Amino acid sequence: MKPNTAFALRGNLVDSASPTQLRCREDHFLVCEDGRVAGVFPRLPDRYAHLPVEDWSGRLIIPGLTDLHTHAPQYAFRGLGMDLELLDWLEARTFPEEAGYADLDYARRAYGLFVQELQAGAATRACVFATVHRESTLLLMELLEKSGLVTRVGKVNMDRNCPDSLREPSAQTSLAATRRWLEACAGFRNTRPILTPRFIPSCSDELLAGLAAVQRETGLPVQSHLSENPSEVEWVRQLCPDAAGYGEAYLRRGLLGGENCPTVMAHCVYSDAAERRLLKEQGVWVAHCPQSNTNLSSGAAPVRAFLEEGVRVGLGSDVAGGHTLSILRAIADAVQVSKLRWRLVEGGARPLTLPEAFWLATAGGGAFFGQVGRFEPGWAFDAVVLEDSAYPHPQPLSSLERLERLCYLCSDDRRAVVRKFVEGRPAAGSAPRNP
Amino acid sequence: MKPNTAFALRGNLVDSASPTQLRCREDHFLVCEDGRVAGVFPRLPDRYAHLPVEDWSGRLIIPGLTDLHTHAPQYAFRGLGMDLELLDWLEARTFPEEAGYADLDYARRAYGLFVQELQAGAATRACVFATVHRESTLLLMELLEKSGLVTRVGKVNMDRNCPDSLREPSAQTSLAATRRWLEACAGFRNTRPILTPRFIPSCSDELLAGLAAVQRETGLPVQSHLSENPSEVEWVRQLCPDAAGYGEAYLRRGLLGGENCPTVMAHCVYSDAAERRLLKEQGVWVAHCPQSNTNLSSGAAPVRAFLEEGVRVGLGSDVAGGHTLSILRAIADAVQVSKLRWRLVEGGARPLTLPEAFWLATAGGGAFFGQVGRFEPGWAFDAVVLEDSAYPHPQPLSSLERLERLCYLCSDDRRAVVRKFVEGRPAAGSAPRNP
Repeated sequence: MKPNTAFALRGNLVDSASPTQLRCREDHFLVCEDGRVAGVFPRLPDRYAHLPVEDWSGRLIIPGLTDLHTHAPQYAFRGLGMDLELLDWLEARTFPEEAGYADLDYARRAYGLFVQELQAGAATRACVFATVHRESTLLLMELLEKSGLVTRVGKVNMDRNCPDSLREPSAQTSLAATRRWLEACAGFRNTRPILTPRFIPSCSDELLAGLAAVQRETGLPVQSHLSENPSEVEWVRQLCPDAAGYGEAYLRRGLLGGENCPTVMAHCVYSDAAERRLLKEQGVWVAHCPQSNTNLSSGAAPVRAFLEEGVRVGLGSDVAGGHTLSILRAIADAVQVSKLRWRLVEGGARPLTLPEAFWLATAGGGAFFGQVGRFEPGWAFDAVVLEDSAYPHPQPLSSLERLERLCYLCSDDRRAVVRKFVEGRPAAGSAPRNP
Repeated sequence: MKPNTAFALRGNLVDSASPTQLRCREDHFLVCEDGRVAGVFPRLPDRYAHLPVEDWSGRLIIPGLTDLHTHAPQYAFRGLGMDLELLDWLEARTFPEEAGYADLDYARRAYGLFVQELQAGAATRACVFATVHRESTLLLMELLEKSGLVTRVGKVNMDRNCPDSLREPSAQTSLAATRRWLEACAGFRNTRPILTPRFIPSCSDELLAGLAAVQRETGLPVQSHLSENPSEVEWVRQLCPDAAGYGEAYLRRGLLGGENCPTVMAHCVYSDAAERRLLKEQGVWVAHCPQSNTNLSSGAAPVRAFLEEGVRVGLGSDVAGGHTLSILRAIADAVQVSKLRWRLVEGGARPLTLPEAFWLATAGGGAFFGQVGRFEPGWAFDAVVLEDSAYPHPQPLSSLERLERLCYLCSDDRRAVVRKFVEGRPAAGSAPRNP
């Protein structure tokens, strides 16, 4: 897919001026060259006068969002079984469903729906868990490759503490399957692999050591779960008596970031000061998943502390702990959960603002993929055109007000996204504006 | 509007078997006679064989929902200014917007949008705050009357602690305007008045005493706000040194329920054991508004305690503290907020389940309007047909699973509601199924 070498979009460009400030450049031109932002202009400069322009005047155009943590095989049961807590929910809902992805026909149908919604939404980037199954993971990657999105996808590893139907027989078979999977997916361009030990409770030390070796050898990134739920944190404490905490347990096993190991850890709800220091030192991205943390009664992550202490953070939908893939909604959810944390937790820090949560959804998580999530020269041309006419209003609204409203009112991106570009390529399914 | 005397709906009927249990009667017939449920049958009995049947086979049919607390003039700025706390938000957003309803042209436009969405949604009943303005309140009531919904609407009273543009010059003028308004709205059938002192901080003792007199004279119901936010609770403590608490302050002023004074109090986030006892003794309905309590950083109400102690409770959207009118979403929000409360508050009670929250949204709040919110013989024929095909799934789902999913996935009722009846009358805008 050769990127459309150069063109421009016209509209109301909204992105982050800083981690705490939004900016809107009304009726501006956003120029794309070779998949990158060439510049933002109030009038199209002469040197670009020949470019094709898609005119979205009056519409909001925002950077593509990043979903830093989601589970493709859980999409099928989003919004179901929500009266359960994490470990019960894994047993009752997640593991039985994931076992179904041994069946390629079922996987094709279910992953097809997942990719369809991801493609139609406001995210241009995502880090995705598949299941332990090599073949259906490859099938998911094929579907994602066709979608035009840029993603990291992981075949899950787990060799203990899960049902027989999902447990890989040994660390060695799990590692061998991982290597075969890595060979098979070498041809994808936009859909790249990421090492994916599910979490410490379901991975033996031998398996984690083996994955750390693969990581060192390949330089591949890593994704997993960290400090999501009190029972889980306690379980890890028992499983890893060598470590002072959950984060340190990953560190000692060679799977907690560092210069050559870009890593996403989902949740970090119970990351105390020591663990946060580790996350910062190791340059780990926290995938904050407010909707999931609420649905699974996990708690409310210390996002203000992450921001103040310089820990990297982005947002994740964590479907199906989260019930929707919408990262627009995750922006509002992040603000909401931070408010309840502030009110209900002794010494709770001041809530996130909408501009801060928007930053997390764009440049915060986007950084995992490089220069992604702002309209700055040289940054990836990931852009989403939003339509908000489904939400009428009697009074005039500024572009920033319209954006805030959309984050709150639109829980289903498909109602709002009318056009999407990833690295300058139109996302499959979105159409240019009729002249 | 004469109700369609008798007919039947066919579909998957889901309602509450009890406050903790849902039931689904798959492919059943729900018979309506004179606006009431005549019965639920697996096959249409001979005596009803002649009735017209609307066939919604395969669709979910649920009782109409009740929105026990919402502000029509705040609909215009739903989802805006959400980075503010209650008292700041009133100053910055609410009062300036409400002042605009002195202008009937603006009110017609803005209330038109509000009524349009309420009408298209899953609620069949609502308790609605207007503004202090008599004329635009009547206009709102006219629009609601045409909608076919059954509502209680209040012209707001306030004579202190608010901007000049909204303050009624004195208790006497406020009371006189209220009486004139009551005379003018005597002709409505489905849209009835409710006395609406905004809350104690904005009503002088003289005004509250006058409203209590009007209440005794007319037997009209009352709606107001109670114990929403710590600063507000403290403010009332200072304003009412005669009372041990906020609830008692209303009681002493003759406006906290009792046998001849059906009353809705919104929020009750900070109602302690003593206040909850009062609420129970006085038979007051609590309008639990989880989305608003989150957005305005108010906190999380002790709903489990209300239920265990026998306090009447329903759900409210509280637009625009809440950002959406969807009571389907309020069901999921109520569960979510109760989970964070359980996790974050010392000694927090176990979370609400989806069946419990569904009960609140139907029979719980519906009881304010009589026998409303269940498919039981003799109860009001309020019924909503839901379409969930916008949310595809690869596996078979039961009707109860489909309902849970819709509560989580559908934040905009307009995507789900395809048909609605209020007391047996088709709601304006919904269409019978094509044969």
